[in-house]
Amino acid sequence: MTPTITAFAQSPDRGLGQARDMRVRWAFEEVGQPYDVRLVSFDAMKQPAHLALQPFGQIPTYEEDGLVLFESGAIILHIAQRRPGLLPDDPNARARAVAWLFAALNTVEPPIVELEQTGYTEGDKPWHKQRVPLMEDRVRARLRELSRRLGSAEWLDGDFSAGDLMMVMVLRRLNGSALQAEYANIAAYVARGEARPAFRRAYEAQHAVFAAAQARS
Amino acid sequence: MTPTITAFAQSPDRGLGQARDMRVRWAFEEVGQPYDVRLVSFDAMKQPAHLALQPFGQIPTYEEDGLVLFESGAIILHIAQRRPGLLPDDPNARARAVAWLFAALNTVEPPIVELEQTGYTEGDKPWHKQRVPLMEDRVRARLRELSRRLGSAEWLDGDFSAGDLMMVMVLRRLNGSALQAEYANIAAYVARGEARPAFRRAYEAQHAVFAAAQARS
Repeated sequence: MTPTITAFAQSPDRGLGQARDMRVRWAFEEVGQPYDVRLVSFDAMKQPAHLALQPFGQIPTYEEDGLVLFESGAIILHIAQRRPGLLPDDPNARARAVAWLFAALNTVEPPIVELEQTGYTEGDKPWHKQRVPLMEDRVRARLRELSRRLGSAEWLDGDFSAGDLMMVMVLRRLNGSALQAEYANIAAYVARGEARPAFRRAYEAQHAVFAAAQARS
Repeated sequence: MTPTITAFAQSPDRGLGQARDMRVRWAFEEVGQPYDVRLVSFDAMKQPAHLALQPFGQIPTYEEDGLVLFESGAIILHIAQRRPGLLPDDPNARARAVAWLFAALNTVEPPIVELEQTGYTEGDKPWHKQRVPLMEDRVRARLRELSRRLGSAEWLDGDFSAGDLMMVMVLRRLNGSALQAEYANIAAYVARGEARPAFRRAYEAQHAVFAAAQARS
């Protein structure tokens, strides 16, 4: 049975691939798993039918044969455990790849999301301009540590893994920000991820949703 | 071989079990896995020897027989996959328990950590008092959604799992805050977690580190 994921009917980022369905699309493409997409409006995301799938009213969800999952990290791990391509065979290397998946989501992403959303949530507050540099420094601290560990390696630990996929997705939230460019090896790492054929296919697929909505409006 | 984890030599919370080694200790206790602890000073955490284990200079780490892991989520998943007690046998139920583990770390914890750390990082700023209610509302939004899903159930999805362990640990960061008490079923859920014998043993073990350091000083 082909799994079905949910994605935004209206792309908040105008098709730039920052919504979290992009992570899951990329994972499907890396392992060669066909998938279906059901689009959900912002309004429908907060209704009981969607909340039954995703208690926090977000996307993506994953449905297959009686299984419903949410959280992009959990969905990617599930996909990676079922088909080769995103986790090494060696059990120790596999556990380390999973550690990078968690590091992307729990250590690197939170300060990046804080910085990103502050413009929307507090952009009109008198303190906003003074807080941005503080938040940028918190992001820098993480990027510095990550840059030091990455060094001149191609990926975080051996071959490309689900950990790299998630880390690239988290770091590319900074695309267009001067912060990413301050760490040349991180900028190159993100570019390497985005150059993968599976990434390109996933990107085009999510962008097509935006383009179709534009064409209709 | 007995795994070794790292923990703070000086407890930042005076032994209240909020440091992230507590999560891993609890997981060990739930599955009946003996473990060793190596204490690390704040200074040593930022030195090359520790950074080789934990690139972001944090605790806990996990070492066993040539395997080094970091990120409490990854460590708990590793423990849970190797011994029964924290993940259901049914593959679908297992995937859902892992989804709650990610939800605790990537959806529920970030706004709680933001609220918690703002006193340390921005407590002296003129805007601090005005921002606290905004941050509390972000936490409330998550608690409301979680409370609605939990309903009158004992645990999030069937039996107690690694997902519940992490969710309880994340929610108990709010112990002593009025926020948790606003949602009676969440307060009761946290209390149920803290009442588990494995939690108590883990709590006592981490508290003993604090008590011993007190006795020496």
